Amino acid sequence: MTLDVLLSALGAQVVEPGETANPAYLKDWASRCPVTPLAVVRPRSVEEVSRTLEICNEHGLPVVPQGGRTGLAGGAQPLADGVVICLDRMNGAPEIDGQGRVARVQAGVTLEQVQQAAEAQGLLFAVDIGSRGSCEIGGMIATNAGGMRAFRYGMMRQNVLGLEAVLPDGTVVSAMNGFLKNNTGYDLKQLFIGAEGTLGVVTGAVLRLHPAQPARVTALLRVENLARAQQVLDALSLRLPGLSICEVMWPDYYYFASGFRGFDPLPDSADGLTLLIEAEGQEEAGLRGDLQTALEYLFEKELVLDGAISQSLRQTEEFWALRSANEGLNQAFSSIVNFDISLHPEIGDAVVARLNDRLAAASHQLRCLWLGHLGDMNLHLGVVRSSGSEIGPECEALIVDAVITTVLDAGGTISAEHGIGAFKVDYVPKLRSEAEQALSRTLRRALDPKGIMNPGRLF
Amino acid sequence: MTLDVLLSALGAQVVEPGETANPAYLKDWASRCPVTPLAVVRPRSVEEVSRTLEICNEHGLPVVPQGGRTGLAGGAQPLADGVVICLDRMNGAPEIDGQGRVARVQAGVTLEQVQQAAEAQGLLFAVDIGSRGSCEIGGMIATNAGGMRAFRYGMMRQNVLGLEAVLPDGTVVSAMNGFLKNNTGYDLKQLFIGAEGTLGVVTGAVLRLHPAQPARVTALLRVENLARAQQVLDALSLRLPGLSICEVMWPDYYYFASGFRGFDPLPDSADGLTLLIEAEGQEEAGLRGDLQTALEYLFEKELVLDGAISQSLRQTEEFWALRSANEGLNQAFSSIVNFDISLHPEIGDAVVARLNDRLAAASHQLRCLWLGHLGDMNLHLGVVRSSGSEIGPECEALIVDAVITTVLDAGGTISAEHGIGAFKVDYVPKLRSEAEQALSRTLRRALDPKGIMNPGRLF
Repeated sequence: MTLDVLLSALGAQVVEPGETANPAYLKDWASRCPVTPLAVVRPRSVEEVSRTLEICNEHGLPVVPQGGRTGLAGGAQPLADGVVICLDRMNGAPEIDGQGRVARVQAGVTLEQVQQAAEAQGLLFAVDIGSRGSCEIGGMIATNAGGMRAFRYGMMRQNVLGLEAVLPDGTVVSAMNGFLKNNTGYDLKQLFIGAEGTLGVVTGAVLRLHPAQPARVTALLRVENLARAQQVLDALSLRLPGLSICEVMWPDYYYFASGFRGFDPLPDSADGLTLLIEAEGQEEAGLRGDLQTALEYLFEKELVLDGAISQSLRQTEEFWALRSANEGLNQAFSSIVNFDISLHPEIGDAVVARLNDRLAAASHQLRCLWLGHLGDMNLHLGVVRSSGSEIGPECEALIVDAVITTVLDAGGTISAEHGIGAFKVDYVPKLRSEAEQALSRTLRRALDPKGIMNPGRLF
Repeated sequence: MTLDVLLSALGAQVVEPGETANPAYLKDWASRCPVTPLAVVRPRSVEEVSRTLEICNEHGLPVVPQGGRTGLAGGAQPLADGVVICLDRMNGAPEIDGQGRVARVQAGVTLEQVQQAAEAQGLLFAVDIGSRGSCEIGGMIATNAGGMRAFRYGMMRQNVLGLEAVLPDGTVVSAMNGFLKNNTGYDLKQLFIGAEGTLGVVTGAVLRLHPAQPARVTALLRVENLARAQQVLDALSLRLPGLSICEVMWPDYYYFASGFRGFDPLPDSADGLTLLIEAEGQEEAGLRGDLQTALEYLFEKELVLDGAISQSLRQTEEFWALRSANEGLNQAFSSIVNFDISLHPEIGDAVVARLNDRLAAASHQLRCLWLGHLGDMNLHLGVVRSSGSEIGPECEALIVDAVITTVLDAGGTISAEHGIGAFKVDYVPKLRSEAEQALSRTLRRALDPKGIMNPGRLF
């Protein structure tokens, strides 16, 4: 039996039968119920990852790679007839190369560890997502994580310079260089970024770092609608070169957030959308002056209805607390149906209005809580019942259908940064052409002829 | 005969026998002598590209895709037993989407056409290379062109959002979306970017645009060495967020350039390296003030030896003329051996010194003309004879060996942005591991089982 082969090859310290494994490995953040796999393997080195895959490949055993299990598409849920490979032990301290401006990391390091190690040397790792304390670099690479600063610094794909991965047959492919320019054949790392563990297991990476700016100013702005918000962003991009955050919150979300947090720094939120902006720079006074000048321009041009520049650290924390109040949605509502979409900016207002209307018509209890990253038009929608009560399966199906058909009809995408995982597999034929799907199958078959890697996920 | 099949399928307007084809198609910028292919095919549509590939695939006929033929690695040189597919007729006017900040283009459009179309709407296409008037977007994608602004805006890979390509069997794969975030399965466009025409033919793209800054200031700085230049760049990155250019010229190059152009705005060039920097911003006065303040800081910290901010458009042109004087090298020297390398910044000074010494020891007549893009440590080296006379094949072999072994020993790469093409194929085993090469072969075989696409190029 394969479990015995794994055990004798890797030892009981590395291989644990699913039944006795720590329950943490049996589900991810998005799973509704745990799934017990045959085994949970927790390799301590790339050699152990390689040996594990080699054995699984030989025995045709499905493999599910796990990072921090913070994904929202179910891509890291165990399979009952498979093996989980969890990278959490490959978490040596990140090596920061200050002059080369790169971090060399193992896959099991958390985002926060990388951020802190970079910061200690006056550098910035630019990708930032809410699960920073738990998500691991390997998983972030496999899912091409995005977050709030992607419009400025890119997603993971743009911040990974080198990569080490293990192919399904156990071959270690190491391309751990740190060059910004290196045109020497196929850029193989691109295969593994965003492949959601279907082409191999990411074991290490060289990450790009940027110089960190010491000063920061934050503001809330109120704008009439999304079209206006875009104009504001355009104007700010030109006038505040240090602009690094531009988040947008719709009235229903803002109403929830200010109620949940117990403060409201920019009243009359029903009048429009609220933007949270932040700019980084060398010193605060100058930055504050630039922001002030930029805001005067926005008021003069009547692009904003209201605005407040944070005057203290405490106020900055309050502004941010509104944006991160989405983490409290689970407390406030017994169920939420979540979406992660990208839209063309031109039709953003229309699509949001259409969906609000469509869901309100379906049930007057449904509320759409919209927020998003304005710079890349990646919007997150949480649909809840205003009473806070549970959304039944029938109603959920209706919501999912309404959102997905509306977004696809509008030429949008229904997975901007969360990925396809297990949950959105059925929608892939609507998202990708026949030729794209065929080429994807060709690729997958070429790298994983036995189909052991995360089967049933991605497509 | 296949030529007849092509002719009858596509017509004499599209298919021309190699013997009667315009000689322009028989060589690229780097070729020493023209090569006459069986035919030159100049499709007018993606359907004609598809039909051409289908026929060539069926008959196992080698295909060489051509863009503007400005490549420096010989990747677009015809093969005598093959067919050239030239995309130059697929050059409809770029469609600029101002709100979505993207350009939709056909592969045969030149870089300059895209730049101008974007500029007309207050936008910037950020990749810029010297051959802008001739190079075509398809070729730039296939070679992942880089250039001077890559440290800030990325190479082509980071500026292509959507792509259309034709596979070797004629299948059209269209993924022409313009989203910054779109995690919906394999990012297939990455396969074709930098693949140098070995996996298919790029026929169209959606390119990312940025807001264009109207004002610009330019300066020349003199610094002691490369390590100091890096500190200057770090300081400027933090103090001048609009910094978009930071080029570096070594003394021998600067001496040539100022002599060639007939002016020398920053004398005593033998004392160190000369940096050409440029920052963009909203209005000139403020930008000039910021640059002035930044320079004062650099002088105060003794990071620069000398410096001059351009005071007029004419002076800006002069500064730039020094940097672009490399275009005159062919006039001044009867032969030049060119290299395109990336180095780790920490060892840059040592590697440059080692190579200068090594080549001087080989022949006191050899001079190394170094210049480069500081932000990504992509250096261009032209080795010439100080007399201007021809470098014989034996001496050239010696130079190539010295440079390549020195760079590889130092952990550098010998193709930063020019690619592998036909000229550097033999070095690939030194640049890529066995596992990387095997995976590359797997990929190529999966997409091009008959091996018709640009055979002998890349690897």
